[in-house]
Amino acid sequence: MLFKKGLSKIIPYEPGKPIEELKRSLRLKEIYKLASNEIPFVPVYIRKAICEEINNINRYPEANCFYLRKSLAVRLKVKESQIIFGNGSDELITLVLRATIEDKDEVIVGYPTFLIYELQARVHGAKIIRVPFKDLRYDLVSMAKKVNKKTKVIFIANPDNPTGTYLNQKEIEKFIKSIPKNVLVVFDEAYFDFAPSDFPKTFDFLRKRGNIVIMRTFSKVYGLAGLRIGYAVATEEIANVLNKIREPFNINRFAQVAALAAVKNEKFLKNTRTYILNEKEYLYKELSRLNVSFRKSATNFVLIEFKKDTSNLNAYLLKKGIIIRPLSGWGLKNYFRVTAGFRKENEKFISCLESYLNTEE
Amino acid sequence: MLFKKGLSKIIPYEPGKPIEELKRSLRLKEIYKLASNEIPFVPVYIRKAICEEINNINRYPEANCFYLRKSLAVRLKVKESQIIFGNGSDELITLVLRATIEDKDEVIVGYPTFLIYELQARVHGAKIIRVPFKDLRYDLVSMAKKVNKKTKVIFIANPDNPTGTYLNQKEIEKFIKSIPKNVLVVFDEAYFDFAPSDFPKTFDFLRKRGNIVIMRTFSKVYGLAGLRIGYAVATEEIANVLNKIREPFNINRFAQVAALAAVKNEKFLKNTRTYILNEKEYLYKELSRLNVSFRKSATNFVLIEFKKDTSNLNAYLLKKGIIIRPLSGWGLKNYFRVTAGFRKENEKFISCLESYLNTEE
Repeated sequence: MLFKKGLSKIIPYEPGKPIEELKRSLRLKEIYKLASNEIPFVPVYIRKAICEEINNINRYPEANCFYLRKSLAVRLKVKESQIIFGNGSDELITLVLRATIEDKDEVIVGYPTFLIYELQARVHGAKIIRVPFKDLRYDLVSMAKKVNKKTKVIFIANPDNPTGTYLNQKEIEKFIKSIPKNVLVVFDEAYFDFAPSDFPKTFDFLRKRGNIVIMRTFSKVYGLAGLRIGYAVATEEIANVLNKIREPFNINRFAQVAALAAVKNEKFLKNTRTYILNEKEYLYKELSRLNVSFRKSATNFVLIEFKKDTSNLNAYLLKKGIIIRPLSGWGLKNYFRVTAGFRKENEKFISCLESYLNTEE
Repeated sequence: MLFKKGLSKIIPYEPGKPIEELKRSLRLKEIYKLASNEIPFVPVYIRKAICEEINNINRYPEANCFYLRKSLAVRLKVKESQIIFGNGSDELITLVLRATIEDKDEVIVGYPTFLIYELQARVHGAKIIRVPFKDLRYDLVSMAKKVNKKTKVIFIANPDNPTGTYLNQKEIEKFIKSIPKNVLVVFDEAYFDFAPSDFPKTFDFLRKRGNIVIMRTFSKVYGLAGLRIGYAVATEEIANVLNKIREPFNINRFAQVAALAAVKNEKFLKNTRTYILNEKEYLYKELSRLNVSFRKSATNFVLIEFKKDTSNLNAYLLKKGIIIRPLSGWGLKNYFRVTAGFRKENEKFISCLESYLNTEE
């Protein structure tokens, strides 16, 4: 047999519907994409960096992201050699697995969380140990109990996607102490910038314990999802292995210059965070008014408990040009996820949800 | 142990020196990079596509490269579902390995050829069967003899990098017939556009035999190395598996729009090919005049047999701002590789080589 055993069982990841796709199929002019936890605007200051870099686009990118690495290391107060850049965090997930998984090794994941951990762990031949969430939160006590000699990696999305819940400093501190140092704990902190102040100081844990990989991304608060760039921070030893086994030119030129511009522009980050948190409050307020159950979130999206199957609602909203994220792929068919967009988009979503609820009754 | 056995033995790929690096270290203004087989100019027609796409850069890219896929399928006369896009061909190499390699499976590679096959096969836990070249060409007869029940993949760079030699229609036809259909033969045709007319019709073999993956890239004749996009063509069944196990957003937005513009602009392709072949002829002529041995090449670079260690020459040229590619990493320490650049660059290289040879004697 040509392919690895077990690949036939893999169900591919289904992304949120792209704006282009809805435009093609419904011939709508105005699309409101509230499905993929992107911020609604483009950071204007990257335009200059991109336009200048076009003149070098026939050349391979720098393999080590020289300037970006320098700048980010200063910002994060880590050594340059502790950073690994990835073609989005997705690639960093696969690199961790590529470096660690041999036959029958185990990977512990929560459920329902970001699906790529489990999907790629399966592709890399790991045995998946799935630990169900409790009250839509990671069950760290049960996860720690699952650790055995075959355990290689534990993936934790914090804050979590798609629930929007987060684990705080105390919870993570207790958990980390219970995990042996030969097990890698990966904290995927893609939504870190939207989290509240008791969010865990994972960089401290990394310094103290070592067996930690912290993943962050330029796709969310920095507004560069289309460019594909994320990064991980780990001990020098671990970073060295991950850098050694990645493809040498994994970060394209535009991603390097745009991320560098982003790192240098803290004001954009701050303004974006304020804007998004404000829009999230708007959503909370309006959902409460409509008597729709939701979960307060540490991210830029809101998990909504619809209490019945969301497929009719989803179809209704799509016709109006609004893309939300139904969660049946996560086993949450009575829930959906909505990203905080522009005020205009959020208003449109709320008004369409309201008219749907009125016609339903 | 956290990491897989065998990772400690891996020597990372060392890329050609980037222009930025030489500028940083030597503070030179004018750099002539003839090291990484890039074309010397930027396709101007992509500028419009890039500048328009900046407005969407906060959004994830389309996971399936909708428009690019459609356009490329028509151009290649294959089904859309036969194409897999990668973050450069490098990613396609890892995807093939990720899909196939289980413990102790074997991968057959030539030597000296593109180093990523062997490096990534090792990372993915394969046993490497290295078959030395004969007269700087793939030894297909010996490679076919190495096939056994554990063989999963054979990698063939055609035309080859760094030798520049190629295998013709007859040789490949005979070889393919001798390989069992449960072994995947990967033809990396990155330099295909520069090859002569008796280059093998691998798309015909793919239709007839099925166990073939043809890899091409936008990094060479299309001038998009900085953007990271390559593609593979295979049977629908194989393409389906590779697409299922890749990261969903592996191709950034700029790569998608620029590659689409490239596919639609055949004139650029034709002109570039003519330009490069002409410059290669210039290099041949001048090298002959200097009595320097070289190998005629089916690519956009020339392999030069220097007959002694190239490190002094390399240091000399670097000081003049000229980056060539010494080949000690391939075990060819008396050889180097030079890319056909602009006429001005090629002239500069030749004149510096000439003055080096004169001072040496």
